Amino acid sequence: MKEHKIACSFSWRRRNLSEVLVDSALSSLGDSYINFVYSVALSNKKGEPEGTKVKGSILAEALRKAGLREYLPSRMSRHSLADAAEALAVYAWLDDCLRLDEAVDAIRKINDPVEALTRLLVAAKERVTFP
Amino acid sequence: MKEHKIACSFSWRRRNLSEVLVDSALSSLGDSYINFVYSVALSNKKGEPEGTKVKGSILAEALRKAGLREYLPSRMSRHSLADAAEALAVYAWLDDCLRLDEAVDAIRKINDPVEALTRLLVAAKERVTFP
Repeated sequence: MKEHKIACSFSWRRRNLSEVLVDSALSSLGDSYINFVYSVALSNKKGEPEGTKVKGSILAEALRKAGLREYLPSRMSRHSLADAAEALAVYAWLDDCLRLDEAVDAIRKINDPVEALTRLLVAAKERVTFP
Repeated sequence: MKEHKIACSFSWRRRNLSEVLVDSALSSLGDSYINFVYSVALSNKKGEPEGTKVKGSILAEALRKAGLREYLPSRMSRHSLADAAEALAVYAWLDDCLRLDEAVDAIRKINDPVEALTRLLVAAKERVTFP
């Protein structure tokens, strides 16, 4: 299906990667984004509609594998690492550098959830832009 | 932002409105869809990113206001009515008759959550197609 321009008239731009990763407002929106993208990808894999909530432990592990841990403070809970992954994923979508269909495709091609989300985060990290 | 064709290669088409409304697979995917769409609309209203989970009671009330109660069996829990709303909303998206940007726009223009979701469901009901 074709999606058209979605108006995102709120203040989402941040100055650098570290700012994105610790932003709780972005991670709050990112939570719903990741769950939707992952659910569409999962539906494609299973052959029928299915919704899911991506576990924090999987997001945290994907963040580490994507080489993003170094951009965060040394002491962080697994929950905060998962939040960071959600924040970056939705920032890449807002930044229009990783479209929804690309995110779904990145995930659906890989069976292992951690690897699939690592691929998504690596693409996001490589493409995001800052002012 | 521009969204491109999202591959939804799974079996989602149903024969009529009643079949859509009682479909638990559609409602499962619809849950993540509604939360994402509503979160983007909410972010636009608030001026900053924010994620939310739409309450079942709000979805159930919107379903009634949209005139969809009559398509369902007489005895249904509020939870099942909320599921029905989620199923129809995502079916309209899968059917490519209500784009993501249109869904966000429908919600963001109205302050009352029930009214906003009623508007979304009415649009979905009017536009969905069946084989």
